[in-house]
Amino acid sequence: MTTARNCKIGLLGCGTVGQGLVDLVNRNRELIRERSGVDLSFTRILVRDLAKRRPGVDTSLLTTQPDRVINNGCDVVVELVGGLEPARSFIQRALHSRKHVVTANKALVALDGFTLLQSASRQRVQFGFEASVCAGIPIIRALRSGLVANSIRSIAGILNGTCNYILTRMAEAGISFDDALREAQVKGFAEADPTLDIDGHDAAQKLKILAEIAFGASISSESVQVDGIRHITLDDVDTARKLGYAVKHVAVAELEESGVSLRVHPALLPNAHPLASVRDENNAVIVKGDAVGEMFFQGKGAGSLPSASAVLSDIVDIASHKKSITRVSLRALPLANKDVDCRRYVRFPVAEPNAIGKITSVLAQQGIAVDRAAATWPQSPSEHSQVKLFIDSCKESSLQSAITTIFELNLLRGESVALPLAA
Amino acid sequence: MTTARNCKIGLLGCGTVGQGLVDLVNRNRELIRERSGVDLSFTRILVRDLAKRRPGVDTSLLTTQPDRVINNGCDVVVELVGGLEPARSFIQRALHSRKHVVTANKALVALDGFTLLQSASRQRVQFGFEASVCAGIPIIRALRSGLVANSIRSIAGILNGTCNYILTRMAEAGISFDDALREAQVKGFAEADPTLDIDGHDAAQKLKILAEIAFGASISSESVQVDGIRHITLDDVDTARKLGYAVKHVAVAELEESGVSLRVHPALLPNAHPLASVRDENNAVIVKGDAVGEMFFQGKGAGSLPSASAVLSDIVDIASHKKSITRVSLRALPLANKDVDCRRYVRFPVAEPNAIGKITSVLAQQGIAVDRAAATWPQSPSEHSQVKLFIDSCKESSLQSAITTIFELNLLRGESVALPLAA
Repeated sequence: MTTARNCKIGLLGCGTVGQGLVDLVNRNRELIRERSGVDLSFTRILVRDLAKRRPGVDTSLLTTQPDRVINNGCDVVVELVGGLEPARSFIQRALHSRKHVVTANKALVALDGFTLLQSASRQRVQFGFEASVCAGIPIIRALRSGLVANSIRSIAGILNGTCNYILTRMAEAGISFDDALREAQVKGFAEADPTLDIDGHDAAQKLKILAEIAFGASISSESVQVDGIRHITLDDVDTARKLGYAVKHVAVAELEESGVSLRVHPALLPNAHPLASVRDENNAVIVKGDAVGEMFFQGKGAGSLPSASAVLSDIVDIASHKKSITRVSLRALPLANKDVDCRRYVRFPVAEPNAIGKITSVLAQQGIAVDRAAATWPQSPSEHSQVKLFIDSCKESSLQSAITTIFELNLLRGESVALPLAA
Repeated sequence: MTTARNCKIGLLGCGTVGQGLVDLVNRNRELIRERSGVDLSFTRILVRDLAKRRPGVDTSLLTTQPDRVINNGCDVVVELVGGLEPARSFIQRALHSRKHVVTANKALVALDGFTLLQSASRQRVQFGFEASVCAGIPIIRALRSGLVANSIRSIAGILNGTCNYILTRMAEAGISFDDALREAQVKGFAEADPTLDIDGHDAAQKLKILAEIAFGASISSESVQVDGIRHITLDDVDTARKLGYAVKHVAVAELEESGVSLRVHPALLPNAHPLASVRDENNAVIVKGDAVGEMFFQGKGAGSLPSASAVLSDIVDIASHKKSITRVSLRALPLANKDVDCRRYVRFPVAEPNAIGKITSVLAQQGIAVDRAAATWPQSPSEHSQVKLFIDSCKESSLQSAITTIFELNLLRGESVALPLAA
């Protein structure tokens, strides 16, 4: 039996993930020690409210003073406070004190991950953030280590569990977006303010982190095209389903000769597409590498224990003196001015179903052929008639010109919806 | 820019995977250097035939003398000779010379992996074998590092690409087992002698390697129950398909209170099961951990470049001075005496379809209820009539008793087939 190496954890934050971390160490400490030779323990735990009940947490470790955690003989500082500040300052102080840092803070890593990696590198300590993307799915490791020999061509995934839960429930239970969102909130799969999730910003942050690692490139947050699922109706989901498609909120990053393109949007996936069968709050990622081809990962993308599992994988790696592969010089890649050319489902809210004639003739003027068409009366007085079209492959710019013309003809009674069809 | 660390590779064997390794280093050497700070090169390459044409391989490095590879200033010895001997002796000599070793040798790792890990540990060098299971899928890493904090409850997978290709073609192209096998051989997905693949031994070796890592236990090869796909007919596949099932060759390892159980066999999976949609020569693994829940990995499980990708991931980890997590003391776990209780599809070759009455009454005597039944005439004079039944949940031992009685009643004209139905 080899002797165990002690690893003392200073924990900042004891919310959902922090509590999960304490629980998981309590439960599997012996297993982890046997498996890796690392013996984990906590030095101090930062909390806001000392009096709050926290089952399984040693109350003598609690403190409200961050410096008592950071400068207290710990080996690794784990930041689970979340948000940009004071989390960033905590991490910077920890790195300056030459502590290894592990975080699950997706917003911060998306914004400042590169700078924090550079600081860690200068201090010759490690900075781990596996838990910041897709919780328990070891996707950061896969990109940095398992697929290190591959030139990565693209990443496509379902990165937001809230969106996927809502779209799954709309398709399977036949309930409206609003009802599915409420259900997600009751079940804890959506925040009280769901904006970041359902408008696509959460998925965009995760995609940026994955793409920066995969492509070794610095990518600005503004360069991610973001669209959410607020405008998806039950009728859209049903129409897609009847024709063999699932509506999914997808995140796609591609590296092409002309540069990188990152986009997050709802799309229609044929039922045989691997992402089409990803259900409920699950996350999934498809990575295309030049050697391995297509690699598919799926698992729980959020939650207390899955996130704690990822945090612990970073801690154990650090304590085993594994050096993470840290490219501290990122290329600057041009942004591909991508005019996506694909088939699409488009929907136009109109005053009268007979607008379909004028709409298809405007599309024809732009050289856009219509594959299937339907027009429906409103289901209730508060709604509009809808013209629904499956159109042949065309450039996004051509479709946008047509939509502008249709808008100028005063045919629309609301925003049009255009969803790409994946092959 | 940090300076690169040189890593000199001594390569034993330049067949399919060896050639892929040379190609991938030629192609992505600069990318790997940028990403990981490791600069890869080859010192010597062991081949049997110096004269054979090998595009992209520097002929001045070729040798037929293994010791010229092992003792020639290399940092890592890569064993891609395959088979038990002389591969094992090569690896032992390399470890004795305190060289790190990386291998793709599944048969050897399944048989002697633990002993080789112990030798490596004593010599304070690393022994990497990511490529020995599922080629490019980073599943060994996931178990050892990404999921290190999880108690693993079960592993279920499609671990043999040849079987999966054959079963996919039978289901999708409606061709017989023999025709699908021939097609797989033409396409290079099956060996000239396909025995190890189609009789399940290849999948059993991979399952043993995964289970030993996941459960931290030493498992004897004999303890794996092995069944292949030779006896699966197109009619079995069609019957399953019509009722919403896919016939797949699955490998299952479970850790229960009473011990471990490992089995490899064809099974009927409902179409919604994640493994049911794994097509062609792909591999997939589902790992259940107590923290992450169900984690699904899918990718190419064989081939020159996917295997080379896995070999390189080990080499780069070693060259980056990552220490692999090496548990060198394995528990001895009892073998669960598993009497699997589940629904099944059973088929009996009989002289006359009216045998169905006698067969169902024998089953009834054992308390086994029949859910659906069909009997078919032979398709050709060389075939038999078939009685096909979907039976309710029962213990394997009860079914075996019934089959013995049916055999003793002289009703059978060939071997009966029993395939579990997965939930």
